[in-house]
Order: sequence, then structure tokens, then C-alpha cells
Amino acid sequence: MSPVWRLGPQVLARAALTYLAEPADPALGALLEVCEPAEVLAAIKAGTLPAIKADALLATDLTDNPARRRALQAAVNRWRLRLPWLPDDAGLAAARRDGIRLICPADPRWPGRLDELGPVRPYALWLRGQADLYEACLRSVSMVGSRAATGYGAHMAGEIAADLGERGWTVVSGGAYGIDAAAHRGALVTGAVTIAVLACGVDYPYPAGHADLFATIAEHGLVISEWPPGRQPARLRFLVRNRTIAALSCGTVIVEAGERSGALNTARHAAQLGKPLMAVPGPVTSAQSAGCHRIIREWGATCVTSADHIIEMLSPLGTPETLPAPATGAPTATVLPSRNPQPATADATPSRDELDADSARVLDALPARGAAGTSTIAAEAGVDLDTVLRCLGMLAGSGFIERCDRGWRLRKP
Amino acid sequence: MSPVWRLGPQVLARAALTYLAEPADPALGALLEVCEPAEVLAAIKAGTLPAIKADALLATDLTDNPARRRALQAAVNRWRLRLPWLPDDAGLAAARRDGIRLICPADPRWPGRLDELGPVRPYALWLRGQADLYEACLRSVSMVGSRAATGYGAHMAGEIAADLGERGWTVVSGGAYGIDAAAHRGALVTGAVTIAVLACGVDYPYPAGHADLFATIAEHGLVISEWPPGRQPARLRFLVRNRTIAALSCGTVIVEAGERSGALNTARHAAQLGKPLMAVPGPVTSAQSAGCHRIIREWGATCVTSADHIIEMLSPLGTPETLPAPATGAPTATVLPSRNPQPATADATPSRDELDADSARVLDALPARGAAGTSTIAAEAGVDLDTVLRCLGMLAGSGFIERCDRGWRLRKP
Repeated sequence: MSPVWRLGPQVLARAALTYLAEPADPALGALLEVCEPAEVLAAIKAGTLPAIKADALLATDLTDNPARRRALQAAVNRWRLRLPWLPDDAGLAAARRDGIRLICPADPRWPGRLDELGPVRPYALWLRGQADLYEACLRSVSMVGSRAATGYGAHMAGEIAADLGERGWTVVSGGAYGIDAAAHRGALVTGAVTIAVLACGVDYPYPAGHADLFATIAEHGLVISEWPPGRQPARLRFLVRNRTIAALSCGTVIVEAGERSGALNTARHAAQLGKPLMAVPGPVTSAQSAGCHRIIREWGATCVTSADHIIEMLSPLGTPETLPAPATGAPTATVLPSRNPQPATADATPSRDELDADSARVLDALPARGAAGTSTIAAEAGVDLDTVLRCLGMLAGSGFIERCDRGWRLRKP
Repeated sequence: MSPVWRLGPQVLARAALTYLAEPADPALGALLEVCEPAEVLAAIKAGTLPAIKADALLATDLTDNPARRRALQAAVNRWRLRLPWLPDDAGLAAARRDGIRLICPADPRWPGRLDELGPVRPYALWLRGQADLYEACLRSVSMVGSRAATGYGAHMAGEIAADLGERGWTVVSGGAYGIDAAAHRGALVTGAVTIAVLACGVDYPYPAGHADLFATIAEHGLVISEWPPGRQPARLRFLVRNRTIAALSCGTVIVEAGERSGALNTARHAAQLGKPLMAVPGPVTSAQSAGCHRIIREWGATCVTSADHIIEMLSPLGTPETLPAPATGAPTATVLPSRNPQPATADATPSRDELDADSARVLDALPARGAAGTSTIAAEAGVDLDTVLRCLGMLAGSGFIERCDRGWRLRKP
């Protein structure tokens, strides 16, 4: 028996449901509240409504509501249309070969915050990358904004994300051009975990120009999606995806947003979930800041200008102490070196001899006095940007170097 | 008998007190709450405490408080030191020759809002300019900010002030370099009344580079001060002056302010008076916007990006309907043409033949189609900036022209 089957029929069924139904389908959400996923899948395959226990009938409003019954049956018929394209094992074996995992609500590492979405919580999440989703979300900030970002907006997103990463916070964003990319990259520079929540399969390179960025994110953090591998993006999927970005973190920051930016949709989800909503101000003369100013003025979003302000807003929610412990079976949360906000103590710092060749080169490329920027260090060390990011993060996590205003510098022993 | 004496002994005494005491002296404020100004002046001249009616003794805390009595006597002695420099008629005749008036709390045109300052309200105000202070303050906004303004800040102050002026709102500011000057100039461009509240005599050109600006303001609006003519500015006087800027208007807008800007002192006065406090956001990367962002985040100042937002905040307070009527004897408030937010009707528009030569030249300088900026029009008409401002305001008020995004344009008949 393949390892996939050890996951059990409910996991397999949830994987299959991500193929058959669009996320946040209220009909499927209602059924999953009263039936096991495998029962719902079996019913879809049979073309009928699943058997619902008598004491749960009321929850689905099916007892004396023929219209409701017809609507649910229509939904089943709709999901059924996609059955011919459902892979035999719901694509789990192929996904595993590509380094893609599935995580379900019953999993102890499922982020409990997603359950705040109620009936529209994800059926499951596809994950690309080795980071621990539960732990990465404990102290996390969603940072989103315009694709048509200005230089100012990209700068702010990058700086604030880097500062958040340096302080041990995970940056969650949407992997889009502009602000999203700047936020992910800012976090990567500090070696922090960052999470890209896509509106397509985690193996689907959209936008195409971000294929390398997603690969780098998967290496240091997570690329996640409610859609199964291979699924293409679509306009409405971005809007549906946004609720997950808002739900996954302690709070949401809008860095730049035009009056009609999709980022404001994410902001609205955050507000509706009762989560802290923040916005970075900008020049009034910039259309890309108009949405930020509007949500500060009209929605009561907090005006933030630094990582400090964001952490101050979120800390009561985000500190591990005040978060509920993961469900049974979860290992004790451990702080990964790369996410450690405190420099490692001298005792814990590995010796230079233990460094891999690339990291040793990068460490040697740092000036003896003062600091250097990431690209200068990459050029000096003769390694590519991806390698320098990986090495800088590791070296910072191990206490060899530290980030400062002007880039990176050696830590004093 | 000179016209000055017709003002009465109390007015004369208040004029004299502006020479003898610094504004907002709590000792003088307390005495003026229980004594007539002339009695206080006579006591100062005699070097004693004024006779206080028995039923008012409690208010000054003099009944059984020798320390309080000693402190008041010390204040009298302090004020007395300046007696040798007090002009015979408190400088009123000379001031009148220079076009300077005095207005006192008993005057029906005294802005009642100033009384919200309680014991630190101005003893009197010296006015340069013919505008009606009471009416000018009915719908007014204090707009202040950094002297070290950026191009962005000056642009925002000018644009918002011009829009406010166009909508019939008076801009109150401090006459300083930077944001203050941009706010005054923006209002002047629309022919609106603007009020400069100085920390020195209204005839004292400080800063020296603003002598012409103050002359222009006095022509179209008011230059006012609590200090008598000829008095020089001093560091502490600016801080004392700020409470008057905040008290005079319906609300205060900070356009740019560094973390330690004096504008935040004005902001604090507005907040303490319970008046709407607003701030214009800017780039986080600009130190001159840091103060604005801070008061939005920490003091709850409203984030505003346009005149519309400001008017929306202030209208419940600022519309003439909801303001108390002026004290007895006040003429009915009339809307001056230059402050009329609605273009004059065609019937009310004077004919071109009635225009003075400068205004006719300025009107001819406007393009037949489209719009032109103020300086372009000045160059085209061959008149100086001061003249073009005066003429544009008159022409707009008379319905010949109107302001638009790109400057000024002819109004369609």
C-alpha cells in the first residue's frame, strides 16, 4: 500500500473535494459541518445527497425545506461535473513526489485561526515547502498591496517585512507583483519564514515571472493554496483566496492600495474577522496610497509606519503564550534558528569550520568594519542572490552576522 | 476729543494690558474675571492689588490665602515694570493711523470661540486688515505645519487651502515659512479671507521675508496678534500664540510636522480644547510627516487628504446655522462675494465695463478654452503676483472665472 493511503480516507476525501468544488462554497461548507468528508465524496460520486444524521438535519436546514434540498442537490450535481478530471488518489502521490503536502483541519498542525472562517474555512490546504505552517502562523502578519506598486510602496513593504522577519514574525502575502513580492523578498532577506497564499496550484507559476521567487519561498517558508496542484488562477479565485490571507495571520497591513485595489478586499476580510487592520500611509498625491488613507479614515485602520507599530498592535494576539495550544498530538513549538528574534548566544554559535562552502564564502564577503548590502555581498562572495539570501539568513540565525540600517554586518563576539 | 477716546476706558485699558503683560498670564486672567480692565490698569499704575468685590474674592482664591495674594502682588509689580514704555493712549491713535484696530471680548464681533480658552483667553486682539473677524471665523480651519516643509507638504497645504477658500472657508495659520505660508497663499489665490496669527506686533515683519505676504493678507484678510504693534517675537511667544490659532477656528489640520515640530503644540491645544484635530499623511520616508502619522496613530487625529474631508469633519460645528448668533449689536452676517462658495448668478455678475483696468487685463489673459495657472496669467496680463491674486479673487467672486484642477478658467455664461 502506498504511503498516501496511510493518510486515511478523510484526508483523501478532502484532497478530492479541493478538486471538485471551488473553495468557500457555502453548500459544501454546510455539508462538511454535519458529514464526514468521505461521506460527502461518496455522495457526489453517487450523485445523491449524503445521509445526514437526524440530529444534524437542522444545521443544514433540510428538515422541512425542499428548496434547500434542491439547492444542495444542484451543488452535488455541479461538483460531480468535475469527477472525470479527479486523479485516482486525488493527486496525493504525484504531489508528494513534487514535494507538495496536504494539511487538513483535523491535523494538529492546522492553524486554528482558519476555523474563524466558519463554514467558508478551507477544505484543506496544499503546501509546498518544509516549514511548519502552525508555528509559522503563531506570530504572523499579512502584508498585501497593489500590484502596480510605486518605488515608495515597494521600499516600505520590503523594509517593514525585513524588520518583521528579523523580529521573528512571519510575513503572509499573495505572491503577486508589486507589494506582495516586496514583502516576501523583504522577509527572505532576513532568513525569516514567509508564506505565499496563491489563487492557483502551488506548482502553478502565476505570475510566471515569480516562478523563481516561489521556489525560494518554498525553500525558506511555504507556498500554500486551497486549489489542487496544476489548477490555474482565475479572477474570482483571487477574491476567494484573500479571505485565507486575512484569516491565517494575527493581523493585516495594507502597504499601498489604489481606490479599487484587491488589497482592500483582503482588508475587508480582516475587518470582518475582527482582526487588527493596519495601513501604511503615503503621499496623498499618490493614487496608490488613496486606499490606505481611506481605510484609515473610514474603516478605522491603524496608521502604522514601522514594524514596531505592527508588533505593538498584534502582540497581545500573537505571542505564543496567549495563543491556544495546538490540538492533541502536536509537538511542542520550537523556535527555528532563522526565526529567532534574539541573536543566538555565543555558546550556541557553531564554529566557522562547520559552515558549508557557500556560507563560509558569504561570511568572508562581509566587511571587517561597517556593513554591506545584500547584492554587494553576493558580488563579493561570487554567489547568486538566492544563495546569498539563504546563507545570510542562516548566518544571522546562527549569530555570526546581524542586520542593520545599511545591510548586514559581523556581530561582535 | 480724539476718536480713540470714544472707545471707552475699558478698551483703552485692555490695549494697555497687552503692553504690560504677556498673553495667557494666569494672574491677569484671574483678575480680569473679577475686575474691570480699567480697575486692573489703575491698580498696576498704583502698584497695588485692585479692589475685588467680596462676592468675587473666592474666584481669585484671595480670601484666606496670603501666598496667593503675594503672587498676585508680584505679578502687578512685574507688569508695572513695563509702564514707562506704555504709550499715552496705549498706542491706539498711532495704530489707527497705520490701519490697525483693536478688538476686545466685549465687542459684538469678538469670536466667541476664543472664550473657550477660559482664563487664558486673549486680553484683546490687534487687527491689521478690514475683514470681519467674527464672520471670518464662522467657517474656518487652522492649518499649520513645519517651517522646514518639503515640496510635497507645501503643495498639499496650498492645494487644500485653495480648495477650502474656494468653498468659502477661512484658513487660519501662523504666518511662518513653509506650511503656514503655503496655506495662506493657497487661500489668497482663491480670493478667500485668510488670517495670520502672529507672535509679534501685526506691523512687525517677522519673518522679514514675509513682509509682502503679510501686506497681501491684510489686504484680503487679517493679520492679528495679542501683542501690541511694534512688539518683537520671542521663542515662548510662538507657543503662547499657538493656543489662539487652535481656539480661533472650527478645527486644526496639521499638514507636515517633524517629531518635534511646533505644529504639534498647536495640535495639542486643539485636542485639549476638544476641537477636531486632523492630519495630512505623507511618505513614511519623510521626517516631516512623522509628526502627522504619530498624531493619527496616537492622538486619534483624523487622516484627511482633501478639503472635502476637512469640511465633512467640521461642518456640524462650522455651519452658520449651528453657531451661536453674535452678541447683541452685531450686524447680520453677510456672505462676501469673495467668500461665496457658489458662483454668483448671471444676474449678479457685473458687466466687463465695470471692471478696473487691472482686472480687465487679468480677465483678458485667461485662455478662451482650457485653463491657466496663476503665474502664467500674471505674465500674460503683465501684472505682479499680488495684483493677479487680488484680481483673480475678485473675478471669481463676481462670477467671471472659476478655479479648476489646472488653475483658472472662464466660466461658461
